Amino acid sequence: MAKKILPLAPVERLIRAASEGDIRVSESACSALTDELEKIGMKIAKEAIIETKHAGRKTVKAEDINRALDILKLG
Amino acid sequence: MAKKILPLAPVERLIRAASEGDIRVSESACSALTDELEKIGMKIAKEAIIETKHAGRKTVKAEDINRALDILKLG
Repeated sequence: MAKKILPLAPVERLIRAASEGDIRVSESACSALTDELEKIGMKIAKEAIIETKHAGRKTVKAEDINRALDILKLG
Repeated sequence: MAKKILPLAPVERLIRAASEGDIRVSESACSALTDELEKIGMKIAKEAIIETKHAGRKTVKAEDINRALDILKLG
């Protein structure tokens, strides 16, 4: 379990939002999903920053994120 | 831009953490990455909840998240 950048509570709400009924969510489940979302988020962000620099900018824009999602076949 | 479950500020920190140098991050970039992480998070959570129910439990555990990542070829 890595040190977190994303907070656990909103990730727990995300899991609850994905459920239609009555479920409980263990802390370890929140932690596992948070770790994974951070890993995916870092991967997207790194690719986006390459695109930002490639465009000669210092500001990461939505178009860089969207381009990164295309490159990584996500989104 | 959908209504957010995940907060924007930690996602901005994630983008900054992915950078080695001096970058700026636009609000629209944070919003785009947050939307994507929510989408991916919901997809993982829905699959995990199916696994939770399949195991006859009402509590989502880390093993359900990990099984969902395997099924979705993530992680």
